[in-house]
Amino acid sequence: MTGDLDNLRVVLVATRNPLNIGAAARAMSNFGARRLRVVNPYEVAFREARSAVGAAGLLAKAEQYESVAEAVVDCRLVVGTTVAGRRELQHRLQRLDEGGRAIKRQLKTGPVALLFGSERVGLSNHELSHCHWVMRIPTREEHGSMNLGQAVAVCLYELVRGQKTAPAKTAPGKKEKTSATSGDVERLTQLLFKVLGASGYVKPQAVAAEEKLRRLVRRMELNANDAEVWLGMLRQIAWKLGAGV
Amino acid sequence: MTGDLDNLRVVLVATRNPLNIGAAARAMSNFGARRLRVVNPYEVAFREARSAVGAAGLLAKAEQYESVAEAVVDCRLVVGTTVAGRRELQHRLQRLDEGGRAIKRQLKTGPVALLFGSERVGLSNHELSHCHWVMRIPTREEHGSMNLGQAVAVCLYELVRGQKTAPAKTAPGKKEKTSATSGDVERLTQLLFKVLGASGYVKPQAVAAEEKLRRLVRRMELNANDAEVWLGMLRQIAWKLGAGV
Repeated sequence: MTGDLDNLRVVLVATRNPLNIGAAARAMSNFGARRLRVVNPYEVAFREARSAVGAAGLLAKAEQYESVAEAVVDCRLVVGTTVAGRRELQHRLQRLDEGGRAIKRQLKTGPVALLFGSERVGLSNHELSHCHWVMRIPTREEHGSMNLGQAVAVCLYELVRGQKTAPAKTAPGKKEKTSATSGDVERLTQLLFKVLGASGYVKPQAVAAEEKLRRLVRRMELNANDAEVWLGMLRQIAWKLGAGV
Repeated sequence: MTGDLDNLRVVLVATRNPLNIGAAARAMSNFGARRLRVVNPYEVAFREARSAVGAAGLLAKAEQYESVAEAVVDCRLVVGTTVAGRRELQHRLQRLDEGGRAIKRQLKTGPVALLFGSERVGLSNHELSHCHWVMRIPTREEHGSMNLGQAVAVCLYELVRGQKTAPAKTAPGKKEKTSATSGDVERLTQLLFKVLGASGYVKPQAVAAEEKLRRLVRRMELNANDAEVWLGMLRQIAWKLGAGV
């Protein structure tokens, strides 16, 4: 099983209780994920959490970031998680088992980020705007809210479940296109936002518009080549509009 | 989903930490299991465990027994759980997904007990002797030992996984997106071509560039709404560039 989750980055966003970070680290170690990233944890001293039984090393090596954008910059697929009962999602929602299959395919080609929000409110719309889509753990409508460590464990289990099966091969001559990195996709988003500002389509500081745009761009699910092309086109348009790049 | 796990009894044997009993209760409530049984918990005062967030009622109704035999007396199938690294098992071992299928079949006909052992040593050989077979959670050999609440969550997830009855709902008013019409996609292509011509990115008559652009736009696989948004953005940019629409 070793190596299958090497490309996975588990990203815990705005976690309140350091014990939950430790518990997540333990679940990661159980299922063979090694790369933990934390974004703005509520308590900075999380590295000593006793709950990381058998996973102290993993926890010590956790990478800390100040924004979701930085934490996912090298990832070609960014997936948010949610539970039942959250209704206002703007994103495409996948069942955990379906989403898990898509993630497993991407893990063969490059880094994938799996995001978990804070215990109280989950992922905010701003945090979610960095995601390509969202995966839903099938809890009951009447009691959706899960313990964070348990949610991590369930998602990772889904990713290692049934691993014996032969890897689905792509048809010969039909190479799987490498997806664009989140860094490139975000650069593209910012550039498009700038162009739209310069052309008067949006106001330069409109946060809601920026998040809407971010989701719109993620829905394009660009491959690396196309992202390059779009960046080039937008740079030229920005230059022509005098928007400065 | 309601009712599917009505026949399941989650049996926690010799649990040391009452917080783990609470966490198990929460996971049960999340996934729709209601009947918790505890056998000889290390701390008798487990019913107040704060970790049973949203599952206080379930925890209060937990049934307490002094032996595994009594706790499973009404069950027609008794299944133990274990993790990687335990070698001396005398029992038939099933993978969690295979075992899960067997349990789901039995749940349709009558009570099934699912046993979880103590945090330190799992189920003893004596406790296991009450089981028909044992289900193994696929943790790594190098770090098999799981948090108890997480183990319960993962097993229950396996039992509800793939149930059609909990459809992943998209936000209201956000029905499965209709794809954009070819007409809109082509309008968008032409507009983008015009914008790129006006900004100097392509020569206005470059046929190869136009075809390349056409393919690029098709790869976006736009839905009807997004195509509208893109058309609006490009119209504004074209207007600002003086490209005339």
